[in-house]
Order: sequence, then C-alpha cells, then structure tokens
Amino acid sequence: MKLVIYPGTFDPITNGHLDIIQRAVLMFDYLLVAVTDNPAKNPLFSLAERVLMIQNSISDKKNISIESFRGLLVDYAMEKKACAILRGLRATLDFEYEFQMALINRKLAPDIATIFLMTHEKYTYLNSTIVKEIARFGGNISCFVPPIVEQKLKEKFKPI
Amino acid sequence: MKLVIYPGTFDPITNGHLDIIQRAVLMFDYLLVAVTDNPAKNPLFSLAERVLMIQNSISDKKNISIESFRGLLVDYAMEKKACAILRGLRATLDFEYEFQMALINRKLAPDIATIFLMTHEKYTYLNSTIVKEIARFGGNISCFVPPIVEQKLKEKFKPI
Amino acid sequence: MKLVIYPGTFDPITNGHLDIIQRAVLMFDYLLVAVTDNPAKNPLFSLAERVLMIQNSISDKKNISIESFRGLLVDYAMEKKACAILRGLRATLDFEYEFQMALINRKLAPDIATIFLMTHEKYTYLNSTIVKEIARFGGNISCFVPPIVEQKLKEKFKPI
Amino acid sequence: MKLVIYPGTFDPITNGHLDIIQRAVLMFDYLLVAVTDNPAKNPLFSLAERVLMIQNSISDKKNISIESFRGLLVDYAMEKKACAILRGLRATLDFEYEFQMALINRKLAPDIATIFLMTHEKYTYLNSTIVKEIARFGGNISCFVPPIVEQKLKEKFKPI
Amino acid sequence: MKLVIYPGTFDPITNGHLDIIQRAVLMFDYLLVAVTDNPAKNPLFSLAERVLMIQNSISDKKNISIESFRGLLVDYAMEKKACAILRGLRATLDFEYEFQMALINRKLAPDIATIFLMTHEKYTYLNSTIVKEIARFGGNISCFVPPIVEQKLKEKFKPI
Amino acid sequence: MKLVIYPGTFDPITNGHLDIIQRAVLMFDYLLVAVTDNPAKNPLFSLAERVLMIQNSISDKKNISIESFRGLLVDYAMEKKACAILRGLRATLDFEYEFQMALINRKLAPDIATIFLMTHEKYTYLNSTIVKEIARFGGNISCFVPPIVEQKLKEKFKPI
Repeated sequence: MKLVIYPGTFDPITNGHLDIIQRAVLMFDYLLVAVTDNPAKNPLFSLAERVLMIQNSISDKKNISIESFRGLLVDYAMEKKACAILRGLRATLDFEYEFQMALINRKLAPDIATIFLMTHEKYTYLNSTIVKEIARFGGNISCFVPPIVEQKLKEKFKPI
Repeated sequence: MKLVIYPGTFDPITNGHLDIIQRAVLMFDYLLVAVTDNPAKNPLFSLAERVLMIQNSISDKKNISIESFRGLLVDYAMEKKACAILRGLRATLDFEYEFQMALINRKLAPDIATIFLMTHEKYTYLNSTIVKEIARFGGNISCFVPPIVEQKLKEKFKPI
Repeated sequence: MKLVIYPGTFDPITNGHLDIIQRAVLMFDYLLVAVTDNPAKNPLFSLAERVLMIQNSISDKKNISIESFRGLLVDYAMEKKACAILRGLRATLDFEYEFQMALINRKLAPDIATIFLMTHEKYTYLNSTIVKEIARFGGNISCFVPPIVEQKLKEKFKPI
Repeated sequence: MKLVIYPGTFDPITNGHLDIIQRAVLMFDYLLVAVTDNPAKNPLFSLAERVLMIQNSISDKKNISIESFRGLLVDYAMEKKACAILRGLRATLDFEYEFQMALINRKLAPDIATIFLMTHEKYTYLNSTIVKEIARFGGNISCFVPPIVEQKLKEKFKPI
Repeated sequence: MKLVIYPGTFDPITNGHLDIIQRAVLMFDYLLVAVTDNPAKNPLFSLAERVLMIQNSISDKKNISIESFRGLLVDYAMEKKACAILRGLRATLDFEYEFQMALINRKLAPDIATIFLMTHEKYTYLNSTIVKEIARFGGNISCFVPPIVEQKLKEKFKPI
Repeated sequence: MKLVIYPGTFDPITNGHLDIIQRAVLMFDYLLVAVTDNPAKNPLFSLAERVLMIQNSISDKKNISIESFRGLLVDYAMEKKACAILRGLRATLDFEYEFQMALINRKLAPDIATIFLMTHEKYTYLNSTIVKEIARFGGNISCFVPPIVEQKLKEKFKPI
C-alpha cells in the first residue's frame, strides 16, 4: 500500500486544503494528514484544536488518517514508510518556496518524492493567515472554511 | 488500477524526463507515457522516432507503456480512464504555463487531476530545445540525454 | 468626459475580456475597445470579424464604442484624447509583459497612464490562443466565449 | 461622482506613493487616501503623524481627501460608496501579493473593483521600509520622500 | 589579464546595452563584445551592420574590442581564454532565461562563470524588439538608442 | 587593484556562499567578505563567531580578507574604495529582492555596481535559515556547510 503524507500547520484548515485532500484520496492508496507541532510558529489554535477541526471537516475517512508530528518532516515520512510528500500549489510565490523545500527534502531523503497538486482556482487567494485576518475584523468567512472552523474562529475573536 | 498519463512532445526525450518517469513508477500503479502527435509543432524527430527513443531509454517497462495520441489531452485521458495527468516542473517559468494548462484541463475534465513532480535540480537547466541547440553546434550532450538520443542527434546534425 | 482605451487583438474576444469590459464601464465615463489591425500577427479572424464579434457580445453600449486602429497605441490614444490605457491582468507572466509595455508607453506619452484590472479568477487560465486550440480539436468552449464566438470558431474549424 | 480609495499604511508616505496619487487624480472624480489604523503592524509613526505627513505633501487637494480607517478595507470602501480600490504596482513580488488581496476583496465585495497603477520606474526600488532603513543609518533620503517626511525621519533617528 | 565576454545578437544595440558596457569596462581588465552570427534568428540588420553600429556607439575603446562569432558561446569563450561571460538583467523574465543559460554553460564549461550586471532602471523596459516595433510605426526612438542606430532604423523603415 | 565586496549576514556561512567566493576570487583582483553587524537581525551566532567560521572555511586567503561592518553597505563600500558589490543569486525570489537592493544602492552610490554570480545548481535550495532548521532537529547537514559550521551548529543545538 502506497502512503502519501500531506503535512501542514493547518492553523486552521481551509476549503483550499480540503480540495487538495479530496482530490488526493482518489489518487493514492492512503493519505496521512500530518499536523506540524511547532510551538515556535506561535499558532492561533492549539495542536489538539487543529487536529480536531480537520477530523470534523472530513466525513469519509476510509483511507485517510490525521496525526501530528514533531521534528524534521523527512524523518517522520521515513518512519511512516511514505512514498511521497503532498503539497498544494496556488500561485508563483507558493511555488518558489515549495520548490526549495522539495529540493532540500530530496537531498535529505532521496527515496521520498514531493508531489504537487494544484488548488482549485476558486481558492487561489485563500490561506489560513488571510482567513484569520478577516475573522478578526468580523468579516464573513463561511465560503472559505468548513463550518467547524468558522465557529471556532468566531469564538476566538468574539468581543469580550 | 490507477493509471497516470505523462504527456509530452519528447522531441527528444532527455535525462530530465527519465528522472520524472523513474520517480513516478514508484508511486503510481501504471504510467502511460503519451507522445503528442502534433505536426503543427514541426518536431525535429518523427512521431515514430520519438516513441522509439523513449522505448529504448526505459529498460524496465513492467508498469509503463508508451503510446502516441492526437487531439485534446483530456479526451485522450478520459478514453484511457486515467485518474491524473503527470507533469514535471523545473522552474518558475514552467510553473506559470503548467498552472494555466492544469486549470483549463480541470475545467474541461473535472475528474482528472494534474500532478506535478519536481525535476532533479541537476536537470533544472535542461530541455529538449537546448539539447538540440547544443547538438547542432557539435557540443557534448552525453550527460543530458540517453545514449540512443545522443546517437540519433549526431545523425541528424552530421556535416554532409 | 474621461475616455479610457482598452486595446487588444481580440482574436477572438473571450469571457475574460468581457469581464474586464463590464467592470470598466462602471468605473470610467467612456470606454473605447480598440482592436489592433496588425496583419503581421496573422490572426485567425479578419479585423472586420473581430470587431463584429465584440459588437455582438456587448448588449448595452451606452458608454462603449468599438473601433480598430493601426500604428502605435500611444499615437492612437493621444489622437482620441484618452486619459488612460486599460489592460487586464491574469497572472505573473502577464504582469511582466504588461509592465514593460506600460513603462515604454509612459516614456512615449507621459500623460497617458496605464490602468490594470484583474481578470476574475475563474478566467485565470483563459486566453484567445487556448480557446482556439480547444476549438480546433472539437472541445467544448461554451463556458469560455460568448455564443457568437463559439459559433464562428465552429465554422472556422468544421471538418470539410 | 465616482470615488476611488487608495489605502495604505503610509509609514511614511514616499515619492512613489505621491506619483500614484498625482496620476490617479487626473483619472478619477475623487480620491480618498485611506491610512490604515492597525496598531498590530507596529508602525514607526503614529496614525496622526502619518496622516499629517500626507496632508503636508499634497498641495492641491481639490478632489482628494485623507482619512484613516480601522477594520476590513472592503467594509470601509462600501461605507464610503467607493467604486474601486487603487493600488500601486512596482514589481513582480508586489503583484503576487496584490493579486491575492484583490481576489479576496472581490470575493468579499463583488461590486468594488481593484485598480492597479504602475509606479514610475524611477521608484521601482522604493518602499517605506527601505527609506526608514537608510534614514536609520544617516543616509541621504531627500530624493525618496517629500521634505516633511525627510525632516520627521531625521527627528526620529537623531542621535541622543 | 582577465577577459570577459559580453555576447548578444545586438539587433540593434540599445542604450541599455551601452549602460552595461560602460559599467563593465570599469570593473574588468578587458571586455570583448561578441555579436552572434546566427542567421536562423533572422535579424533585421546584417552581422556587419550590427558590428558597425556597436563600433560607432563606443567612443573610448581602450580595453574593449568588438567581434562576431558562430557556434556555441562556451567554445568561443574557451578559445578566447575568457574567465567569464557577462549578461545584463532587467527583470524577472530575463532572469529565468539567463539562469537557465548560465547553468547549462556552467555544465559545458565549468571554468567559465556567468556574471550578471543590472541594467539601469531607466532602461528596464527596453529591448531591441520593442525599439524596432516603435521605429516601424514612426515613433521617436532617440532616447532609446545611440544616434547611429536611430539613423539606420529610419533608413530601414522609411516609406517607399 | 580592483576590490569587490561580498556582504552578508553569514549566520552561518554555507557551501553555497563558499561556491560564490571560490568563483569570485578567480575573477576579481581582491575580494572582501564583509559580515553585517546588525544586532536587530538577532543572529544565532555572534559577529565574532560568524567571522571566525568564514576564516576557518577558506584555506587560501591570498586575495581575500574577511571583515565586519556596521551601517549602510554603500558607505562601507565607498570607504573601502570598492568598485562593486557581489551577490549570489539562487532563484527568482532572490532576484526580486536583490534587484531592489541593487537599484537603491545604485541610487545612493552611482559609481559602485552590483555584480551577481549564480550559485551552483546543487546549492539552489540552500540558505542559512534552512540549515539552522535542519540542525535544530538533529538532521545531517554535513553536505550543506563546512566542517567548522557543522560542529558549531551541533554545539548550539545539543540537548542539555
């Protein structure tokens, strides 16, 4: 069975991420969504909250599991015997950064490829940072994130 | 069985293409290398020559086959029941063009994804046009293409 | 009254162009769609056909007119007393080229600005060349171009 | 009357911003320069100082006004009944970010377009961050900013 | 003595090229401007005309010489015992192409480096193709090219 | 004698930097590696450590010296009577930033050019930040940095 890892901070998961996940499960035997436990990044949501929001947003988990990990991504991928790392691409800026990470990961673990899937063009503009910025100012984010994330963001930013 | 199509003009196939093929066969059940039959592109090698050079360059063809096709790539992919189209990425310029093609193909055939694999950094600079240009002026191309291609290019460009 | 020129080859006009036109008329007093008469570009449609397809695709022409022109765009813009040239932007590749043209036009005619509007993300992938390529192979182009253009392209590419 | 908003942090205003403002007033009925009140960005100058420097740098304010705002830009633009948001473009990096913001704003407020004007090539390199960096080390900034800004920056960075 | 080669088609030389040459002679012992003799490119000016226009445009030729060459640039550079190839960079699109050529030349001739100098920002928009396009339509090119080139272009495009 | 400055934070020096240095010394009379003393950047290694690691990594220092500097780079370059500033380029993102800095430095000091050398493609992915990230998680960095840097990074990140 070929396992592919989809790593990310997912702070929080967006409809753009879910689009990638839904396409990937049709293509690969097993998809492991891997949430980075990197406290230095100072995420808005705790690791547990981020994992929970992903679990709530994916209904059919037949060949998907959600985990968290610490340390180097390639070490984790080798431990899991993954054949590839999956990344979403939205635009040119993404590409430059992803290209660099893919090259360095290939150097560190030559047997693990990096696969890119293109995000749907209707999510070209979308990332977790922008969603949090809109939510902070009370903007409507219902078309950007799944319901559980919309609710959690409202709780985080509700006026006291 | 999940079939993935790797389309291209392959005029001629280079070590960069072969690097993508070798990585892809480890990841997907079956890889169909599909050579575009587009006379309007005015290729240096005939369709038959291009297919032959690919066949000669791949030793283990257990889960690979090589074909040619005419018409729209997505029509061909649907006919073959492919789950995805595979493309290699080398640099930012590639990405812009590939992104556009992937978006339009998604529009024409929503169920067929486009997957990108990154070319090895040692082939970043490599494409079929540059290889032909160097061969035309008698430069050494042995580290850019498989032996059969080197020989065929020498024949094409030998002084009369 | 402030007149803005939207120049292009429009070979043929697409829904992406129409999206730009529809937004521009809300913003500027008068919009002049200017079709380039440049036989060196070897267009698929004649100048008259291209103008006609635009006229047929725009229903409300209260503050729009469609013309053709020869020669330097800035000369034509000055003759028309335009305050600005309008261009659509889709992606980074567009931008580089448009940036260059805008800088040179500013040098040639410092009083005429170049204004950019962003094409709707659902037309990110769209341009006249791709539409013609799909039509040539009998693909469905009804969501990319207005009905008159779809019909004209079918006529151009019908099997004899 | 068509109102266009030119938003920014303007920390501080530079000659590049002024070039955009001077071109825009020739093209649009009314220009509203809108200074972002976002304390999280930790600006060098207070909101009041930033507004004041802009007011001092624009001599003819016949169809320009300067304001500050809090919250989402599109909410402010709708409140002001603006038909468009104006942004300056200098180079490719600008474009990627601006493109993303324009797409998300179009999603949040479909009736408000984003218009881009190109900064004069002699200000290609210029932004507020670089100007502050040069001023901090005592470099000459007189050709980058209006006199009031030069003076204020000298005060900020004068040795104690 | 360290010799650096500045290769190009120079069809025709522009003020942007001259800016690079004037900066390079201050930095390197000897500069060899090398005009590509590639009839396949179908230049507007003959090889002899292109060399002559460069010779006429450079007044002080103390440590500069102008030559033409055929074949692979790296072969020519090795024959001349050049330590480096010099290229001008104007914008991102330039960079991608130049990067590719520099990598392949490094592969073909590891001892010859490629050095990039940045074109003055006032020539960011300038290239030989645009200059010819403007001249063809009778536009004013006196600020883009040296006098000899302006005169030669007028002769080429004068109405019969 | 023509002196060229190669400035950087070098926190720490990598094999990519060393590749640039080794090529530059073949081309220029004298190379001054200049380490930025900018405490605001909050480097991992002290200024003294960074200078020492560079000194240890370069065996033949016949026409190289290593210094540190404070303040504006162009002021330092003028004081040293440098004819040029040298920068390495790896990819498009580098280019945009470097282009901006080169333009502003040309404005501040018109007589000092910025020269770009391309990093070897095998170091395309490499920068000091990535090396520190890998070292932090105990990854193998021996092919990315010289031995002295590998050892110093291990000391910094050893578990207590």
